[in-house]
Amino acid sequence: MASSRDEPCLKAYSIARSLALKAIEYSRVEPRVEEVLKRRGECIAIAGDEFCPKGRVFVVGAGKASGRMAEVVEKILGELVEGGYVSVLRQAASDYSTSRIEVIGAGHPVPDEGSLEAGKKILELARSLGEDDLLLALISGGGSALMEQPLDPSITLTDLVRLNDLLLKSGVTIHEINAVRKHVSAVKGGRLAEAAYPARVVSLIVSDVPGDRLDTVASGPTVPDPTTYRDALAVLEKYRLEEKAPPSILSVLKAGARGEAPETPKPGSPVFERVTNRLVAASIDALRRLEEHAKNLGFRTLILTTRLEGESREVGVALATIALEALDRGIPVEPPAVILAGGETYVTVRGGGIGGRNMELALSFAIKVRGEHGIAVAAIDTDGIDGVTDAAGAVADPHTVEEAVKLGLDPTDYLDHNDSYRFFERIGGLIKTGPTHTNLKSMYIVVVVPRQ
Amino acid sequence: MASSRDEPCLKAYSIARSLALKAIEYSRVEPRVEEVLKRRGECIAIAGDEFCPKGRVFVVGAGKASGRMAEVVEKILGELVEGGYVSVLRQAASDYSTSRIEVIGAGHPVPDEGSLEAGKKILELARSLGEDDLLLALISGGGSALMEQPLDPSITLTDLVRLNDLLLKSGVTIHEINAVRKHVSAVKGGRLAEAAYPARVVSLIVSDVPGDRLDTVASGPTVPDPTTYRDALAVLEKYRLEEKAPPSILSVLKAGARGEAPETPKPGSPVFERVTNRLVAASIDALRRLEEHAKNLGFRTLILTTRLEGESREVGVALATIALEALDRGIPVEPPAVILAGGETYVTVRGGGIGGRNMELALSFAIKVRGEHGIAVAAIDTDGIDGVTDAAGAVADPHTVEEAVKLGLDPTDYLDHNDSYRFFERIGGLIKTGPTHTNLKSMYIVVVVPRQ
Repeated sequence: MASSRDEPCLKAYSIARSLALKAIEYSRVEPRVEEVLKRRGECIAIAGDEFCPKGRVFVVGAGKASGRMAEVVEKILGELVEGGYVSVLRQAASDYSTSRIEVIGAGHPVPDEGSLEAGKKILELARSLGEDDLLLALISGGGSALMEQPLDPSITLTDLVRLNDLLLKSGVTIHEINAVRKHVSAVKGGRLAEAAYPARVVSLIVSDVPGDRLDTVASGPTVPDPTTYRDALAVLEKYRLEEKAPPSILSVLKAGARGEAPETPKPGSPVFERVTNRLVAASIDALRRLEEHAKNLGFRTLILTTRLEGESREVGVALATIALEALDRGIPVEPPAVILAGGETYVTVRGGGIGGRNMELALSFAIKVRGEHGIAVAAIDTDGIDGVTDAAGAVADPHTVEEAVKLGLDPTDYLDHNDSYRFFERIGGLIKTGPTHTNLKSMYIVVVVPRQ
Repeated sequence: MASSRDEPCLKAYSIARSLALKAIEYSRVEPRVEEVLKRRGECIAIAGDEFCPKGRVFVVGAGKASGRMAEVVEKILGELVEGGYVSVLRQAASDYSTSRIEVIGAGHPVPDEGSLEAGKKILELARSLGEDDLLLALISGGGSALMEQPLDPSITLTDLVRLNDLLLKSGVTIHEINAVRKHVSAVKGGRLAEAAYPARVVSLIVSDVPGDRLDTVASGPTVPDPTTYRDALAVLEKYRLEEKAPPSILSVLKAGARGEAPETPKPGSPVFERVTNRLVAASIDALRRLEEHAKNLGFRTLILTTRLEGESREVGVALATIALEALDRGIPVEPPAVILAGGETYVTVRGGGIGGRNMELALSFAIKVRGEHGIAVAAIDTDGIDGVTDAAGAVADPHTVEEAVKLGLDPTDYLDHNDSYRFFERIGGLIKTGPTHTNLKSMYIVVVVPRQ
């Protein structure tokens, strides 16, 4: 029989749980799009600007959140939308109901034929537009894989996939990777905006990248590219990848560097006089709303970072040591305290269990704070899906672990077998919301309430 | 040829390095003892109180920092010290020069015959004291293994070692472990103070435990023990260890629980009317001085925790993501910023390289912040020895990694082979101070200076 939590435990646990649900609510993309996009008769208000297109309005997009964004755009603009395409995760393609915008399912993280189809259709549409037309682009994380067209027909899909693998394996930074990617693609690095020129382009962007650099989300199809062919070649040289890179790619980059192929559109290009890039959702905004909410509940707050990374179980331990210090000494924040972070930790799979990065973090945290009272953690993926489970994540505290031990279970054993889902299924703590089709990665909520 | 750091990089790197050296300086135990202990003629001032013992003054102690403490005590009190014993790490026993206090080398983390010798000599000395005598106890981390005497002759050293192994393997919390340990020992859990009763006991304690609970440092030989034989038995029951525990131990605990053996001295016991326990050094004090120093240099500061744990390379990544957020967005602290932590991360050894937990953390951090400017990290062990190397730790930044790549080295490869020492030896960044014989674990210093 389960014993019950004492007062500080109960408070910390229930607040952590309710803040996790709030985090998912605040991360939903629909209200963010509704905030910035309004219909006024035949005109469209976007973030204060009003567009009354003499021509037609089309919608394109790519990314994990772009399907949901397309639904909302259709709902708001109705028959003003002439048509368009959004490219989403293949497995989620049937989840969206749009009547004017065609939803294309494509591969992620590895681009596939669907990605090429989306790239082709979207580019053709963009190129067909005139000065009086408006192109609404719905860009979100994952868009880089979900929408693609090689810059030159000599480059195959396989070449792009090999290039990507090579870059990821070589310790190349994300900015360096993007410099290369953008110079072998006909959509990335502002080239989609260029294709649509002279049409008016308004891009609504949901960021899933650290620092929320717009030229990085989905490799910035509508954003100026400050990098050059020479930069891209320099990356391959620096990491000694020239001989390993697919020859078609090397030859396109070299031709570009010799001035034989057009550069990506740069900051200051006339293309961008017709483009508005608007960040509509980012982890930091959801975390700040969450912080505000926690303050209103009487908690002191601290946001650690929006880009937390590291092995889940180790990050769980590190977060626990911060929570314990808060409880003991009011460092880094005096309880009652809520410590928040966003990001995406990872799991090195060793066991054959069922789990997710968030549940592992929560379980590891709880093991580390065992024996204490008034500390709880919740870790959730804002898309509502942690790992390959039907839960967004879990809430956990010292009591969770005590209950397991009482049942004769070894919590560390579950962790070692990557079986965190089954652990929380047995003891309680799973947070289930269903898929939200948003993409602000994970959020971590640590609650510390004073001992008495 | 090495390229040089740009302005923000140079500043961050040099500040990180100089703060690391300050951290080691502020962690030294000698000045802390000198602060609290003064000789005034035939009297001794300890932290404001003055003792003019009519009887004799003896010094005992156990722990990694207790050798250095004994030297300072002799220097200050001179011939007032009648004699005594301190138990230190066997390999460091010849590093101390005391003339009145005998230094005993013993085993750590596994107690050995030296630990028993120390326990025996110290207890015999304590028991020989009278009401007019003063016993100065110098307690620091590691003392639990370095000084031991089983409560009952039926318990062997092997039994104690087996018990300890069993507890550590079973996921038992540190408080639960201590409840058991204290009830099978003749020195722990206040029993050294009890043995010295009615002599006056003043204990100078250097904490290496999370939260700095005095009853936890070296299992609290001079501190009241709130736990009981029943608590100790309950721990074994809870984790189903009754059949696995050495029979001698089980039988002593059961006899105690039946009231057939005396309890450890409890809070309120007359023993402690004669005892003063004084925390003379703890990680938090050194970190606060370091924070003050950084503030005086114009930095905003944040102490994250004094008890950071987790796999070094993963904690390095997590700290890097906090530094990157500070640089990008002024979260959790606006640059110019110094983010500090104390604690002890660990390394899962996979390679055959030379390294240490601090160097690994620094290297991993630097890899994660590659491509940035104005971020640096230093990670050092306050005892001056990281791993089994001659360095205390290392300072690193994005430039460190760029230099390595330019030389054709793969920094991740060094990390994967646990070869961080050789990495920093080659590229630069090792911090060498020699052994300091103090014990405030590791300190982590992150410096972030604004981009322009």
